[in-house]
Amino acid sequence: MTAYEQGARYGQGQALGVVRPASVKEVQAVVRWCSENGIRLVPQGANTGLVGSSTPDASGTQVVLSTSRLRGLCEVDVANRSVTVDAGVTLQELNDQLEPHGLWFPIDLGANPTVGGMVATNTGGTRLIRYGDVRHNLLALQAVLLSPAGELINMGRALRKDNTGPDLKQLFVGSSGAGAILTRATLEVHVRPTQSATALVVPTSDDAVLQLLQALEHDLGDYLSAFEGLSGNAMQAAIDHVPGLRNPLSPDPVPEFAVLIELETASNKAYTGVDLQESLNSFLQDQFEQTIENAVIGNGHELWKLRHSISEGARALGKPIAFDVSVPRSQIMAFRRAARELIEAEFPFLHVVDFGHIADGGVHLNVIWSSDSEQTYDEAVVTKLRDRIYAMVVQEFAGSFSAEHGVGPHNISYYQRYTPQTARQLARGLRQLVDPMQLCGTVSFGP
Amino acid sequence: MTAYEQGARYGQGQALGVVRPASVKEVQAVVRWCSENGIRLVPQGANTGLVGSSTPDASGTQVVLSTSRLRGLCEVDVANRSVTVDAGVTLQELNDQLEPHGLWFPIDLGANPTVGGMVATNTGGTRLIRYGDVRHNLLALQAVLLSPAGELINMGRALRKDNTGPDLKQLFVGSSGAGAILTRATLEVHVRPTQSATALVVPTSDDAVLQLLQALEHDLGDYLSAFEGLSGNAMQAAIDHVPGLRNPLSPDPVPEFAVLIELETASNKAYTGVDLQESLNSFLQDQFEQTIENAVIGNGHELWKLRHSISEGARALGKPIAFDVSVPRSQIMAFRRAARELIEAEFPFLHVVDFGHIADGGVHLNVIWSSDSEQTYDEAVVTKLRDRIYAMVVQEFAGSFSAEHGVGPHNISYYQRYTPQTARQLARGLRQLVDPMQLCGTVSFGP
Repeated sequence: MTAYEQGARYGQGQALGVVRPASVKEVQAVVRWCSENGIRLVPQGANTGLVGSSTPDASGTQVVLSTSRLRGLCEVDVANRSVTVDAGVTLQELNDQLEPHGLWFPIDLGANPTVGGMVATNTGGTRLIRYGDVRHNLLALQAVLLSPAGELINMGRALRKDNTGPDLKQLFVGSSGAGAILTRATLEVHVRPTQSATALVVPTSDDAVLQLLQALEHDLGDYLSAFEGLSGNAMQAAIDHVPGLRNPLSPDPVPEFAVLIELETASNKAYTGVDLQESLNSFLQDQFEQTIENAVIGNGHELWKLRHSISEGARALGKPIAFDVSVPRSQIMAFRRAARELIEAEFPFLHVVDFGHIADGGVHLNVIWSSDSEQTYDEAVVTKLRDRIYAMVVQEFAGSFSAEHGVGPHNISYYQRYTPQTARQLARGLRQLVDPMQLCGTVSFGP
Repeated sequence: MTAYEQGARYGQGQALGVVRPASVKEVQAVVRWCSENGIRLVPQGANTGLVGSSTPDASGTQVVLSTSRLRGLCEVDVANRSVTVDAGVTLQELNDQLEPHGLWFPIDLGANPTVGGMVATNTGGTRLIRYGDVRHNLLALQAVLLSPAGELINMGRALRKDNTGPDLKQLFVGSSGAGAILTRATLEVHVRPTQSATALVVPTSDDAVLQLLQALEHDLGDYLSAFEGLSGNAMQAAIDHVPGLRNPLSPDPVPEFAVLIELETASNKAYTGVDLQESLNSFLQDQFEQTIENAVIGNGHELWKLRHSISEGARALGKPIAFDVSVPRSQIMAFRRAARELIEAEFPFLHVVDFGHIADGGVHLNVIWSSDSEQTYDEAVVTKLRDRIYAMVVQEFAGSFSAEHGVGPHNISYYQRYTPQTARQLARGLRQLVDPMQLCGTVSFGP
């Protein structure tokens, strides 16, 4: 059972058992039985979440409900550009089904979650600026309620315009699995790009990063699919510790900060004449001396491999302390500066290896407690660091303490700290409506 | 007080009074007073809604709360591409503020609603396929709750990624004004297009309409901003009755059905080389004989004027009976055919003047009771027609009886008829959480 008891980053418990229903009827039976016996259910998809919300606690009293066998349906409506899919189908399986139609579900992540998990986490990823998060692409949702226990509810239809009362499915998007078992979703899907262009650029200053982003959105905004910030530390960690990577700017040294730009288009060059890489290159040419001082163009595969290797590189340096935060993107460079200054001043033995989704304001402020540090790893110091950084994000920068990983046992205490009383009361009321005994999920959003 | 008592299409009542608070504090005081005295509040923005949800009933006991003076704030964060705006600011005023920055809020409607009204209605409009509805562009929302009475709640921040518990603002999007007074919103805004291309095309068949849409999305999908269906009857009504219009396809006759295509881009031609009208023209050239048999290209102003004059033209023919429905867009031509056949068979004295947003599945199935019909207008017949059409939409085509106009006293009975019991119970529970005495708004979404 270990695979079901241990989370991808946090969450390590002991389950009473694991159930793997293969149909909605079986889910309903499990929910009814758990409800009658007062047993808590922990829904689990691919168990790739990063806040511990898909694994049981240590009590040995909770049942893991795995959706891994709920994968009978993956029905594409090509003309509607939508797909209706069972909760246990993975992102990769979904995209495999869509590919022959020239379509895809463009949420891009460093994992392969299930559709149910993606809805419960409202995943975003690197291409959010172009395609939005899961919420933006969710047309309909089916769930088994805890109250009335085992009752099936269908929320929404395969429609882009439907305003017939409150949009109930929103209650279960980003729910962290609380309140109901998600069994099926209808998603809007998109035309798969046929052309892309990439560049890694070195901005002249922090201000230049935002100027560059704005210029890009005004000049090539129809195509912008990613605008990712990479710190020098993060690039260096990947280059040093992940085989097959090199400094793409060589012989120039690894810069203090760089931006990975990606443009994509599905449009037909025969009609548009657009060569995206040429467009990007001539745009960057004009940005030289204005906002950028160095750039390497093309070779998207190598640049993305560098970007996606940062987490692995960082882990090689020591114990990572991860922050998945966001701020208004107008504040992102100022926040990054302030956070680094704080860590340098108060936690000089820690090493910042940050990267982020500049275009959507997301910052993965990864901090490393080096394995060869003179100071030994201390959970109390980590807690102090978390307190300081989250306070800065939320109070000084009007940001979020969990941008895209959601809330689980790992960070629920910050929900309680930073969510105003009125909002928590309303959240508790919502939960009580669908799950009055709090039998589904690992967190309570109440006061 | 008449202006506040009479709706734009439905809703004609008598108010106890009209209050026009100029600040959130004043809204809070009004809400507290109404709560203490058990008086129902009807929030009203620009009163442009089409389902009667912004006007009081005939009892003379309800107070209209107009947001027309809540317009002190309209703060643009250019680098964040967002705006924080008071609920009483209109769409036009908002866009006037955004224009100097090369930005806009791209919801395109035949009216000039307030921001609060747009959130409460979750407006969509003609460019939904490109930009989404209001829900897709809402980052944060402020409201005054009825319970605790007069309490201010801030939901969300100016963030694109924020997953810290249930997204409470969703409770008030498309609420029809029920449950709380919306006072302020933060919206994502977009880069204003600098180039557009239009064409009016005549498809070879119903199937060809969907083939054309799919080809367009695959070949020029980055730019597609509208794909509007116009019936021949609708075009003819506009041409006959609205001054300054002509048949754009002349000397060919007005076709039975045509599609207005619009492409838009904000991208800089200096970098892309794209001439959108040329791209569209060469795409259409290849579609000749495949999906289209006639086309007129360019002259967007004239084509959009024709499209936007349909309602006025239809009104000149007699009494309009409006249907704002949607179906999965893969079914839209089949639905249109079935609906027209039903009306021809069972209501041969009525005249169908339909148009629709093909790309998002929305159909404005306007039916006219001609002023020179032999049969005199009969409300019972209208009700029978409504029952038949809505049953067809919802039961046969898995569609929605209210695509973008929302639910108000005008159509609440269809909500009750077509929303499953489980969903209605949950909706009632939601309402009870925020407004247990049902003091705000004109409709109840319960059983």
